[in-house]
Amino acid sequence: MDFCDGLPVRETLERVSASLGCAPTSAQVASYLDEHDRLRHLREKFLVPKIADLPPSDLSLVDGTKDCIYLVGNSLGLQPKNARKYLDEELDKWAKMGVHGHTEGFRPWAWAENNIEELMAKVVGAKTEEVALMNGLTVNLHLLLLSFYKPTATRHKILLEDKAFPSDHYAVESQIRLRGFDPEQSMLPLSPRPGEDTLRTEDILEVIDKEGDSIAVVMFGGVQYYTGQLFNMAAITEAGHRKGCYVGFDCAHAAGNVELKLHDWGVDFACWCSYKYLNSGAGGIAGAFVHEKHKHTIKPVLLGWWGHDLKTRFQMNNEMDLQPGVSGFRLSNQPILLICPLQASLEVFNMTTMQELRKKSYLLTGYLEYLIQHYYTKDPAQPHKPHVSIITPSDPQQRGCQLSLCFSVPITKVFQELEKRGVACDMREPSVLRVAPVPLYNSFSDVHGFVETLGSAILASSQRTNLSRGKE
Amino acid sequence: MDFCDGLPVRETLERVSASLGCAPTSAQVASYLDEHDRLRHLREKFLVPKIADLPPSDLSLVDGTKDCIYLVGNSLGLQPKNARKYLDEELDKWAKMGVHGHTEGFRPWAWAENNIEELMAKVVGAKTEEVALMNGLTVNLHLLLLSFYKPTATRHKILLEDKAFPSDHYAVESQIRLRGFDPEQSMLPLSPRPGEDTLRTEDILEVIDKEGDSIAVVMFGGVQYYTGQLFNMAAITEAGHRKGCYVGFDCAHAAGNVELKLHDWGVDFACWCSYKYLNSGAGGIAGAFVHEKHKHTIKPVLLGWWGHDLKTRFQMNNEMDLQPGVSGFRLSNQPILLICPLQASLEVFNMTTMQELRKKSYLLTGYLEYLIQHYYTKDPAQPHKPHVSIITPSDPQQRGCQLSLCFSVPITKVFQELEKRGVACDMREPSVLRVAPVPLYNSFSDVHGFVETLGSAILASSQRTNLSRGKE
Ligand SMILES: Cc1ncc(COP(=O)(O)O)c(C=O)c1O
Ligand SMILES: Cc1ncc(COP(=O)(O)O)c(C=O)c1O
Repeated sequence: MDFCDGLPVRETLERVSASLGCAPTSAQVASYLDEHDRLRHLREKFLVPKIADLPPSDLSLVDGTKDCIYLVGNSLGLQPKNARKYLDEELDKWAKMGVHGHTEGFRPWAWAENNIEELMAKVVGAKTEEVALMNGLTVNLHLLLLSFYKPTATRHKILLEDKAFPSDHYAVESQIRLRGFDPEQSMLPLSPRPGEDTLRTEDILEVIDKEGDSIAVVMFGGVQYYTGQLFNMAAITEAGHRKGCYVGFDCAHAAGNVELKLHDWGVDFACWCSYKYLNSGAGGIAGAFVHEKHKHTIKPVLLGWWGHDLKTRFQMNNEMDLQPGVSGFRLSNQPILLICPLQASLEVFNMTTMQELRKKSYLLTGYLEYLIQHYYTKDPAQPHKPHVSIITPSDPQQRGCQLSLCFSVPITKVFQELEKRGVACDMREPSVLRVAPVPLYNSFSDVHGFVETLGSAILASSQRTNLSRGKE
Repeated sequence: MDFCDGLPVRETLERVSASLGCAPTSAQVASYLDEHDRLRHLREKFLVPKIADLPPSDLSLVDGTKDCIYLVGNSLGLQPKNARKYLDEELDKWAKMGVHGHTEGFRPWAWAENNIEELMAKVVGAKTEEVALMNGLTVNLHLLLLSFYKPTATRHKILLEDKAFPSDHYAVESQIRLRGFDPEQSMLPLSPRPGEDTLRTEDILEVIDKEGDSIAVVMFGGVQYYTGQLFNMAAITEAGHRKGCYVGFDCAHAAGNVELKLHDWGVDFACWCSYKYLNSGAGGIAGAFVHEKHKHTIKPVLLGWWGHDLKTRFQMNNEMDLQPGVSGFRLSNQPILLICPLQASLEVFNMTTMQELRKKSYLLTGYLEYLIQHYYTKDPAQPHKPHVSIITPSDPQQRGCQLSLCFSVPITKVFQELEKRGVACDMREPSVLRVAPVPLYNSFSDVHGFVETLGSAILASSQRTNLSRGKE
């Protein structure tokens, strides 16, 4: 898609539509963009559900034989086609050779996670030795905070978003308590300005600058799960370091979505799950990152045999030979059944780069934004016409692929009507529809189809509302 | 196998062989016992590897088409046949409906682990609410110790086996450090008497009685991984409680092997893995137990959203509504791909009871012991004849299914020769062969075949030794 590199999305769309002789909102534009999408073959690597198979589909309203419009990779990524193949290989191995599978085959179970950590590292912009695949995300966040959060009387705060993901919130709160501090005093939650939905980078940097001396750890999501805001991790890291804080990120919504440079940015620690943009299946194995600069200085607090040097791990002499860096944080042996689907997905990532994906994402999400704005901008002249506002930042540098939409009409109904028509997206309490066109497998036609369906959904939901009003 | 209930194994074997008119060591006895084994149909629920598929097999020495002699369920259990079926169901669901799988189908991913916790609880003698399936074993041990190990100046010790499993050792060591104590002072390791291989219950109880006032936590393996010794968990728990200690067990080698009554014994906490006797595959999901008496008093130290009441978990308001008891210790959402094989295995357990399995185990392992003793007892008249000693207690109440064998000849060679001949068992550094006839799927013929093969293996290994000596 080089033809539009660097151009604002609106201009690209206008150029394309002009050359096609149609309106920028025409489905022809989507088809054209798909044809010229150099990454479109990657969709073939995934299993896209058919509309008929989605439980809420209403086949009187939509053709069930078509692919659904899957825009919920922010919650659960699609299944890579090779996932089952790799799982079958390991099930065969288990069936055929039992315990010998630990050291035999394509994926010797005893170090299977190590074999895909290089691919994982590439996706998050880290060196292989900085990454460990293990546990769940919240577990990893705790293991990391145990080492990075060492509060003192004067420096005891953790700076985080006021509306951090619940698990992160609870993790931070409980870590503070564990260290004998009071979350009331030591949790420093940052809210957007009154009337705004997202944090301004300048405000984040200012708080760090002002309060940094009392902040032990700055802990943000890479991409905010609710608003879709992508934080300026480089700037936050730098600001934190200037004040002597450790800086860590929960990259649940960032890994595989945006370009990360955890190493280059000098991020101290990070963790992420793999079931969202990394397509490893529900509850997939999580990742952890510790920057190599801490390799010999930051030690894990909790130890287990998987942190022991592999070469001598099974000598079982109870003398810990701790691996340096994040590898020392490993505790338990890891499940082969979770490595298989993640490998399948990471291999697809490895057919391109996060940079290329990000380029497509810029246009794909920009296209979604363009269409939403075109059809659903609030019109003062028609105050009763349903409108949609986007709380995700409009600056592409401040978002990933997800847009979070707020509606002037009751959202639950709109959501239901979308689901009936074969759209998979998600609603988050209290009132946001999260829509995530994933550059790895979503098409421009998906986006166009979504906005078209949204029209019917809004119409149907308002008719129903009127209908039930009529009945009152 | 009621015909021999309560009889010493030797007598049963002698009676059977007398009735068959053969020697107690004859293969006929094994066949007879298999025919009368009321649990023998359970083997059909598992995939038993063929000899030809085991990498070390030497098909010039053994018929590759036969089932291997799999005696290593203490390390990695066999694959339940339904594991693949259930995995396929969930892969199909993921492929067909993506994110909707969280709440749909046989195993809604968002609470899939909860659905098999009742089966899990039965196997370890607990109430369902006392059990959580989550994480890996070492992770769970840490989460539990964080709550149960609260050292004070006077009561700060953790009593454990001197040769605890490495991961347990490191876990305990690091927990002590985390609390600001010194492992040198606070780790209280218990060794067997000089010249003995296993701990005497009386010695364990005496230490607890003498040192109990300074012991915060008593932490033992349920079954010792190296010696196979089954500890008297009831007596240890009672002794610990008498002195005001918390008592916990790592049941890695006990769960699914011996009858556990974690609830009735009043055990405070326990954890276990599921890839050994519970047959869930390498790195399978682990279990944790907190006794219901602590439901409202012992709180988790580290919190995550999975510990939040399920009913309101997804309202995402960042106000923790902590589930009581062990459920509050949940952190991350759990992997569906690990639930499937464990469910398949627990359903097989549910076709019988641990009591029935234990009855078979008593005879099965007793039979192994009988044959080993018959052929390999040290004979002072023949000092050069290879002999084998069993370091596992001879009292069936003090062992599970595993016997740990020590050899008068170099063990590595014997082990290799066994492997060439289609036996899967394991060697643990420094010098023990662990042999675990699992009552769920092993047969008496497996045991007989093993001892027979051991004869050839010892012979071959000593010939090779002589041969290579001859060359020197
Ligand atoms: C007794 C015992 N404890 C702990 C472990 C460590 O288990 P994991 O790697 O699942 O944490 C094992 C593993 O074999 C074990 O046998
Ligand atoms: C931003 C963020 N943090 C943490 C979590 C919790 O993840 P886990 O259940 O894998 O620990 C999630 C899950 O969706 C998330 O989106």
